[in-house]
Amino acid sequence: MITELLIKIFSLTIIGFLFAIAITPLWTKLLFKYRLGKQIRNDGSTPLYSELHGSKAGTPTMGGVIVWGTVVILAFTFWFLDRVIGIEQFHVLNFLTRKETLLPLGALLGAAVVGLMDDYLDIRRLGHKGRGFRFRFKIILYTAVAMIGAWWFYFKLGFDFVNIPFYGDIIIGWWFIPFFLLVTIGTSFAVNQTDGLDGLAGGVLLVAFVCFAVISFMQGRDDLTALLGVVSGALLAFLWFNVYPARFFMGDTGSMGLGVLLAIVAFLTNSVLLLPLIGLIFVIEAGSFFIQMFWRVVFKKKFFLSAPIHHHLEALGWPEAKVTMRFWILSSIAGIMSIIIFFLAR
Amino acid sequence: MITELLIKIFSLTIIGFLFAIAITPLWTKLLFKYRLGKQIRNDGSTPLYSELHGSKAGTPTMGGVIVWGTVVILAFTFWFLDRVIGIEQFHVLNFLTRKETLLPLGALLGAAVVGLMDDYLDIRRLGHKGRGFRFRFKIILYTAVAMIGAWWFYFKLGFDFVNIPFYGDIIIGWWFIPFFLLVTIGTSFAVNQTDGLDGLAGGVLLVAFVCFAVISFMQGRDDLTALLGVVSGALLAFLWFNVYPARFFMGDTGSMGLGVLLAIVAFLTNSVLLLPLIGLIFVIEAGSFFIQMFWRVVFKKKFFLSAPIHHHLEALGWPEAKVTMRFWILSSIAGIMSIIIFFLAR
Repeated sequence: MITELLIKIFSLTIIGFLFAIAITPLWTKLLFKYRLGKQIRNDGSTPLYSELHGSKAGTPTMGGVIVWGTVVILAFTFWFLDRVIGIEQFHVLNFLTRKETLLPLGALLGAAVVGLMDDYLDIRRLGHKGRGFRFRFKIILYTAVAMIGAWWFYFKLGFDFVNIPFYGDIIIGWWFIPFFLLVTIGTSFAVNQTDGLDGLAGGVLLVAFVCFAVISFMQGRDDLTALLGVVSGALLAFLWFNVYPARFFMGDTGSMGLGVLLAIVAFLTNSVLLLPLIGLIFVIEAGSFFIQMFWRVVFKKKFFLSAPIHHHLEALGWPEAKVTMRFWILSSIAGIMSIIIFFLAR
Repeated sequence: MITELLIKIFSLTIIGFLFAIAITPLWTKLLFKYRLGKQIRNDGSTPLYSELHGSKAGTPTMGGVIVWGTVVILAFTFWFLDRVIGIEQFHVLNFLTRKETLLPLGALLGAAVVGLMDDYLDIRRLGHKGRGFRFRFKIILYTAVAMIGAWWFYFKLGFDFVNIPFYGDIIIGWWFIPFFLLVTIGTSFAVNQTDGLDGLAGGVLLVAFVCFAVISFMQGRDDLTALLGVVSGALLAFLWFNVYPARFFMGDTGSMGLGVLLAIVAFLTNSVLLLPLIGLIFVIEAGSFFIQMFWRVVFKKKFFLSAPIHHHLEALGWPEAKVTMRFWILSSIAGIMSIIIFFLAR
């Protein structure tokens, strides 16, 4: 039984990897054909950053489509072949269930599509100051996506509690809704901040999803674990092209979509308080961004040479790939610690 | 029960990581103090290689000591505190048992010490042509280490069979001994060949050991799994310093020691035929080396621009870290496939 389940999960990981590798040439051709390359900010406001990253202008963005596209297409295809066409052999590969994976898939898709529109406007130099959606409008859109998730969790799944490791669930009533919004939007913006070096956000997301796959597996959430397997496989394929020097970036469509998915998986496995440790790098990245903002406003100077912290380390002379790989290692260690806490607290 | 075991394994991984990080400054200080830096070959026989890697001359080698030193010291310490001093709290951390881990630990230590002597002679420009042990003598030394392993397997553990996935064990009698020698020495030389780019051999070894940890765990070999957990943690720490640009290299002491360990773990888990897939990169690296040799001898010209294949890819213009990270990704995929085969064949 467990063996069969593990075969299913690992096979879906390989399928996710191969499918994502297979669709990459098509997607890259499209990106290059329509010149969907990234603008590197160079308005004088961030001189160090512009110097370090100017050479990346023109690299296509929206590579995150490969990850969420793979996940959504495979989920739908296997469900369709199993449930609609009724091919028995696909039953074992079908991981789309109302109970476990419909919500995370929907939220992933919703946030990814909003991110995609924003990426597109940014590339076309449309929208607010030619840089995509106005920040306020962006927040409203992502909040709308997160609200649907919150509603589903609170009303459909009856979530009104948060698990505190070593203590147990505490009931927080309707406070669950603002808490959910805060975590979901916070996580996606933190992932978005982290997405500033080749391979960085992708690798850290991979580690985080693998950790949640372990947790989800131990909780017997088979379909959710399978979904996380596909995500991991697709992320490995994405990384193949995204490691330094990146063929393309994940874009907002990747970071926001996968960020929202990460937060929702944390809620579904009732382990949201482990999220800051599993996603330690995201916390550090977002934290460094806010410290820099705070310092600029309060003391009128910079705290870091450049923010978020990966640019600070680059400015100190670390090669880009060194920052990336060390952050992967740190993620892995934090992830293993989270799993230990998860087991100890069971 | 399973939860407790997983807590033990993951905790040992973290302990291995932290211990290795802690001893690194001491070891690096020693390496720099005694100027134990690497010679980069520059006798005109390998012009492309010398050009690409000349700047690495002087980087200390023998960093592999951090990995096997951590493993051996922790194994002995926890055993000593548990069995000799009798501190009950350390019983759970003790993973040194005659049945499962004494042999791999001994073989690791034996091969690593031979490698260490060779590294030392090489750095001091002593020995054969100032490059350490004469090749023939080296082979004899490693064969001696492997012979002890073969003897133990054949006579003490009664191994005279090889498992063929989907078929079962086949008895090969005393042929087990030459087969064991071939695989063990072959694996360690393949790992040694792979150790040519910053972070490459370390990362690929990490993936391979994690895969065998999964296999060993599923077989209920708890102490062996714990040993692999410590190795993985120590490798993560090693990688922290070894990723591009490397603070030090692993040296023969690392690659030969860990290569022998890898082969022995494959035999102990009776899954030696999975080793070429779990260690796919090692096979590709050693294969490219032999193809190049063969081409040179038979056709009097080069097949690859530079061998092994990681230097060929560099010569094609791939940045060093790109080769490394892509080989890590490939390893992971091959590793997941091996685990699927392992499960299917159970």
